[in-house]
Amino acid sequence: MVIVMAPDATQRDLDEVVGLVTTAGGEAFVSRGVNRTIVGLVGDLDQFEALNLRGMAGVLDVVRISVPYKLVSRENHPARSTVRVGGVPIGPDSVTLIAGPCAVETPEQTLAAAQMAKAAGATLLRGGAYKPRTSPYAFQGLGEAGLRILADVRAETGLPIVTEVVDAHDVELVASYADMLQVGTRNMQNFALLQAVGAAGRPVMLKRGMTATIEEWLMAAEYVAQRGNLDIVLCERGIRTFEKATRNTLDVSAVPVAQRLSHLPVIIDPSHSGGRRDLVLPLTRAAIAVGADGVIIDVHPQPEKALCDGPQALVDGDLTELARVMRTFPEAMGRALT
Amino acid sequence: MVIVMAPDATQRDLDEVVGLVTTAGGEAFVSRGVNRTIVGLVGDLDQFEALNLRGMAGVLDVVRISVPYKLVSRENHPARSTVRVGGVPIGPDSVTLIAGPCAVETPEQTLAAAQMAKAAGATLLRGGAYKPRTSPYAFQGLGEAGLRILADVRAETGLPIVTEVVDAHDVELVASYADMLQVGTRNMQNFALLQAVGAAGRPVMLKRGMTATIEEWLMAAEYVAQRGNLDIVLCERGIRTFEKATRNTLDVSAVPVAQRLSHLPVIIDPSHSGGRRDLVLPLTRAAIAVGADGVIIDVHPQPEKALCDGPQALVDGDLTELARVMRTFPEAMGRALT
Amino acid sequence: MVIVMAPDATQRDLDEVVGLVTTAGGEAFVSRGVNRTIVGLVGDLDQFEALNLRGMAGVLDVVRISVPYKLVSRENHPARSTVRVGGVPIGPDSVTLIAGPCAVETPEQTLAAAQMAKAAGATLLRGGAYKPRTSPYAFQGLGEAGLRILADVRAETGLPIVTEVVDAHDVELVASYADMLQVGTRNMQNFALLQAVGAAGRPVMLKRGMTATIEEWLMAAEYVAQRGNLDIVLCERGIRTFEKATRNTLDVSAVPVAQRLSHLPVIIDPSHSGGRRDLVLPLTRAAIAVGADGVIIDVHPQPEKALCDGPQALVDGDLTELARVMRTFPEAMGRALT
Amino acid sequence: MVIVMAPDATQRDLDEVVGLVTTAGGEAFVSRGVNRTIVGLVGDLDQFEALNLRGMAGVLDVVRISVPYKLVSRENHPARSTVRVGGVPIGPDSVTLIAGPCAVETPEQTLAAAQMAKAAGATLLRGGAYKPRTSPYAFQGLGEAGLRILADVRAETGLPIVTEVVDAHDVELVASYADMLQVGTRNMQNFALLQAVGAAGRPVMLKRGMTATIEEWLMAAEYVAQRGNLDIVLCERGIRTFEKATRNTLDVSAVPVAQRLSHLPVIIDPSHSGGRRDLVLPLTRAAIAVGADGVIIDVHPQPEKALCDGPQALVDGDLTELARVMRTFPEAMGRALT
Repeated sequence: MVIVMAPDATQRDLDEVVGLVTTAGGEAFVSRGVNRTIVGLVGDLDQFEALNLRGMAGVLDVVRISVPYKLVSRENHPARSTVRVGGVPIGPDSVTLIAGPCAVETPEQTLAAAQMAKAAGATLLRGGAYKPRTSPYAFQGLGEAGLRILADVRAETGLPIVTEVVDAHDVELVASYADMLQVGTRNMQNFALLQAVGAAGRPVMLKRGMTATIEEWLMAAEYVAQRGNLDIVLCERGIRTFEKATRNTLDVSAVPVAQRLSHLPVIIDPSHSGGRRDLVLPLTRAAIAVGADGVIIDVHPQPEKALCDGPQALVDGDLTELARVMRTFPEAMGRALT
Repeated sequence: MVIVMAPDATQRDLDEVVGLVTTAGGEAFVSRGVNRTIVGLVGDLDQFEALNLRGMAGVLDVVRISVPYKLVSRENHPARSTVRVGGVPIGPDSVTLIAGPCAVETPEQTLAAAQMAKAAGATLLRGGAYKPRTSPYAFQGLGEAGLRILADVRAETGLPIVTEVVDAHDVELVASYADMLQVGTRNMQNFALLQAVGAAGRPVMLKRGMTATIEEWLMAAEYVAQRGNLDIVLCERGIRTFEKATRNTLDVSAVPVAQRLSHLPVIIDPSHSGGRRDLVLPLTRAAIAVGADGVIIDVHPQPEKALCDGPQALVDGDLTELARVMRTFPEAMGRALT
Repeated sequence: MVIVMAPDATQRDLDEVVGLVTTAGGEAFVSRGVNRTIVGLVGDLDQFEALNLRGMAGVLDVVRISVPYKLVSRENHPARSTVRVGGVPIGPDSVTLIAGPCAVETPEQTLAAAQMAKAAGATLLRGGAYKPRTSPYAFQGLGEAGLRILADVRAETGLPIVTEVVDAHDVELVASYADMLQVGTRNMQNFALLQAVGAAGRPVMLKRGMTATIEEWLMAAEYVAQRGNLDIVLCERGIRTFEKATRNTLDVSAVPVAQRLSHLPVIIDPSHSGGRRDLVLPLTRAAIAVGADGVIIDVHPQPEKALCDGPQALVDGDLTELARVMRTFPEAMGRALT
Repeated sequence: MVIVMAPDATQRDLDEVVGLVTTAGGEAFVSRGVNRTIVGLVGDLDQFEALNLRGMAGVLDVVRISVPYKLVSRENHPARSTVRVGGVPIGPDSVTLIAGPCAVETPEQTLAAAQMAKAAGATLLRGGAYKPRTSPYAFQGLGEAGLRILADVRAETGLPIVTEVVDAHDVELVASYADMLQVGTRNMQNFALLQAVGAAGRPVMLKRGMTATIEEWLMAAEYVAQRGNLDIVLCERGIRTFEKATRNTLDVSAVPVAQRLSHLPVIIDPSHSGGRRDLVLPLTRAAIAVGADGVIIDVHPQPEKALCDGPQALVDGDLTELARVMRTFPEAMGRALT
């Protein structure tokens, strides 16, 4: 942490800053410049945060240098991690395809989507039983009935299940069915939910908030990790920008950046970022090429009848092309398709 | 709702769109242009949404025309509403000052802050017992002990209490102490929480998500209203932009825009938007001048010791100036300070 | 400037950094922490920038501490400046109203708009003869014929003229008619234009780029100042954000922030930021209340016939209310209406 | 174009809108809904724009349906175009590698960079002689001396030259040396410059403004095309967002979106978007995989001595990996490396 003193700070202001830091058990290194003086702090940064140094007389700015997360940081854990979901690995040696319907609607639709997904190379099944929707008038999911459908389809196809949980008090129930719990973009800073999934004994997929910085995303992962669960997969799904041609702007750079800062696997959701079917395959290729550890894709047997996000679901012909992409691009990256 | 057909759409594509809409009970008006054809839809828009018209052959775009919220819309309720909190009005005839500490820390600190607030003209006391924090290592609030402190300070000062609730399952407890429930910016789309506060029998202050559009904010209010609670006050608190000089960018335009779209009162939080003490008074003046129905401000007797957001809390000298602003600017607007 | 060394940086990496800085004539102060080492640099920062320190082995990050502008900085010129335009002051003691048509169309329209402006309290006339337009098919202004109309209207009304210049090679011509040269939002980083207006011997109004940080805006002003012209007025006119309800988001916080960083006057354009007539008066009040040194407003005698931005121009009834605002709010701020 | 009438619009308001449109030579189709009435317009949209329909009594909103660009639109030119630069194609059948130094500094540095570029597969040489810089104190380029160096290196290596022009009045000079003129991100809406390069008889590379929508980018291309020059290559180079971990956010989705809207080739600049060397190769792979028609990359023989953007230039070892990427990924896309 570095404190920048104002040009008109007095010696007394400086002494008080140094005194406060050393009283708190830290060390303060003073560098005097022509125009201004800076003070480098060494010690327990969380404690320094509590000192309100920014509010002291003569202090112009306080610049944090260290990253504020620990358990998920690569500094403390240099090797990149592999997370296993029902035996399926997500990590640096492979590219994992997760696919399925946005929302579970009926047993037939879910089974058909799962079979389409599997044929294209998917090893994990996605599907939502609880849907957070901007409008209270939109379809909100089947709830536990949807979880039972997912379990039946898992039994039929052998694909482990990834499904979203939206309320801390549903975590235990959802975890009793699911192989991996998904936390959605709107809940990335729902801290009660993060703590609950951290304690649930299941791997967690943490979607990036649509307006969260990479640092905030890693801090949210730290909330999960704090409860003893490091089986976390980060999922980039597009951020909110001024551009209106796409629903969100897929931030592919976030993959190498997050992989450098954290040991956790990072995957991409090309379906929700673009919100348009014609963008899903180009963005899937880009995701694999940029180094994502997997992709999660919406498929639907009859998207024109989907109750949620039909316009972005892949259909029959697209799946053939998806299968081709999954055979070609992981190989170009020197990775196996799991 | 308007459907824009692609330039190469066929007559059959058009017929199918019109057929689907009329089968669903709607009416379709076709306008043929030189380059393209558009179809205007009349009927139940929620039903049209479920048709996945965007996915049909020959459809280029679907443009929604109506607003998607109803209960909070000014179309259905032209007069602007006044919400009463423990007898204190927030509405179009007045400017209400809500002030207090960001976080409740001790009985002494809370009482001192409440007295500062009251002296400056505040008629409602703010104070957080549950704090959502980006870092799991930061102070998270005193919980129920904090609520008890707030209740004691209310008894002492007569100021009704506004306090945040962050988990749906704490709503009943918090509502047993509070006069108004606050939903914070990170929880604006925590739909379980919105539904719970909607059913709690207390007025609700709904902060705008730091990256929510005004339309999404009104949709979130609709979630509360759907549970039978229309005592909702909207609070603009700054949005996330590329500008780094301020913590967030206060969107003052949101006040007249939201007041035109919705009958609900709209207030401004000048403390959290700027994140800097020196901006609080200028932004407070701007808030009143743009037409906000109130402001909510952090004050702290010793901000250098605050456990949360000390750098933005007003202190002694600032309060004198705040009192002056509250005497002058509401009057220039032809409004009473409540 | 502070260099943050990577956790795995070697002593040799550190020595090379220190050696390079001292060879370049600077001083390097090393602070060793538990997890990382930081190096504070003192000396000529422009020279340090050229060293590519960020690319050296073992360097994790380089954090600039000083502001990169000099002539426009308040550090070197603590008193806030007043700029005079044809004798009319824009500065800390007053609120200046600049008004007129977005584009000069005819002598009659320009004179009528000028008279409306003057009646509402305006002391400077705005009006565009050169219009930068997103579409090449839109009206681009009358050019020199428009400048002649402005000069005639000045003679008739006594109002000095503020007008935009969009090409470096028109600067001399425009300066021969205008009292103040305006650089528009799309040209804020047109450096050839900035240098030309810096040398033109006229006061300059520099609009903030719609996606420029405050720092970039001040750097653009530095380009003008470098040519010997410190008669610069900064104009905030809304920034681009995700919100679609308004054309741009007026960043009122930019006024106190820029006034603290720079000695230059700062005004607000409430017409272009909102892009809607119903927002102009609320944003004008907010502008004055936040501390702007002036406002610049579109007026038009018949906005429904305006060739440019008619939807945001104030008309007859609005002007009466504008006059009332200009009598009331500067006074509440303890300032004179110039 | 669709006009949405307000819920309280009168029949007379509606009649006036219809009358104005038909008087202007257009047709108006009225659709009456339960809550509101919409009017579809058919005819010359540019003329409708000038009518200020939005300002008429009873009009709530005006929604534009058609795209506002024509010459660059794919509607009027369904086949995707190939642009030839000194004989080198940029278009749908190939992936073109453009590489070279950010700035031309010396003959030796430029030649060395060109040889590195060629060895990695580049067929066009980039290099800046005129540099637009945020700070007036930063290196601004060698000017014509730089152009001469580029011409010498072209003679030596056979690589045609792509170089930036920043001022309309330098266009003729730069065009006398260059094979392709580049318009940079800060100048995307410098309309005088766009018109000048449109008339210069050279292919043009048009970088997307860092805060321009795709539609504004295509409108800027239309300015060039209007002057008779359709040899335009669009270049996505990252947009400004709230994320601070990268200099800009590379918007890979813009490639398929722009290719669908326009027939012009679209390439990506992975160097300037990330601003970090470690992101260049991942983003290059993503660029090719998403379907870009080429990439433009900074290389430098000694980036630690670069006068401009050294931290992002590729160096020796990186070039070997770049060459491998250029052999592998175009093939996976079924395209030739030009």
